[in-house]
Amino acid sequence: MAASTARTERKILVAVDEGEESTYALSWCLKNVVTENSKDTLILLYAQPPRTVYTGLDGTGYLFSSDILATMDRYSNEMANCVTEKAKRICKELNNVKVETRAEPGDPRDVICQVAEKLGVDLVVIGSHGYGPIKRAFLGSVSNHCAKNLKCPVLIVKKAQIK
Amino acid sequence: MAASTARTERKILVAVDEGEESTYALSWCLKNVVTENSKDTLILLYAQPPRTVYTGLDGTGYLFSSDILATMDRYSNEMANCVTEKAKRICKELNNVKVETRAEPGDPRDVICQVAEKLGVDLVVIGSHGYGPIKRAFLGSVSNHCAKNLKCPVLIVKKAQIK
Repeated sequence: MAASTARTERKILVAVDEGEESTYALSWCLKNVVTENSKDTLILLYAQPPRTVYTGLDGTGYLFSSDILATMDRYSNEMANCVTEKAKRICKELNNVKVETRAEPGDPRDVICQVAEKLGVDLVVIGSHGYGPIKRAFLGSVSNHCAKNLKCPVLIVKKAQIK
Repeated sequence: MAASTARTERKILVAVDEGEESTYALSWCLKNVVTENSKDTLILLYAQPPRTVYTGLDGTGYLFSSDILATMDRYSNEMANCVTEKAKRICKELNNVKVETRAEPGDPRDVICQVAEKLGVDLVVIGSHGYGPIKRAFLGSVSNHCAKNLKCPVLIVKKAQIK
């Protein structure tokens, strides 16, 4: 089987967030994995942080008025739109591939694994920091979790550490 | 910049060994990452297990005659040839890409990271088992180590678990 025939109509999930690492990972994927004029679909997934419960020093939760809660939700939705729209623009600029965007509330580790499984994607692309040995031990948990738990291939793209 | 222009002359390191997982990872890479008629070079790397020191129950090492040691070395070299030749055939069959083979003695984790760094490769491809939650905690250390320590993008390809 020729390589090109196997490439048709792949679903590639790219985890996007506010950070530069995910922008770099998306760009790398567009340049190195997605072929021009392919039938690939890129699913840009943003894990929307769930609403935080603010707790007082005595352990009781703060109660916010509905106004404040509405503002917080609006801010969260605006952020999701901003991240996914930026990612869409990068796709348009680098490679005119078919793009879908999704924003799902929850921990990115769970959201990425659940959506990848549900949609039966062919590949998951995740950005990661190029940290030194100490930070590395504590961070990079999203890519590590996904590499361990996803059944499909996982591409971890690191943005080189700025020295 | 068009996606295709960025693809030229990439160096892709694929870790190969005796297992089915690395064969699957190599095939996946050939079908999904390497473009036909590209200028990519695939570096098929086999980490050759270092000569084992056999230890007696009293803690002393066994001394082998030079005949036995020569046989063990020959066997190890034959295994390296067998693995890399098989990988080369797969490349030839799936995608007529430029291929180099290397066999380096040592722990696969160190060998992969050292060679990737030395050659300045653009991508490292590693196979991995699709284990259940218990085995997963103990195994998959090669892909995990490489994902943590390599600076370049890492593609982890899992062979689905046979139920």
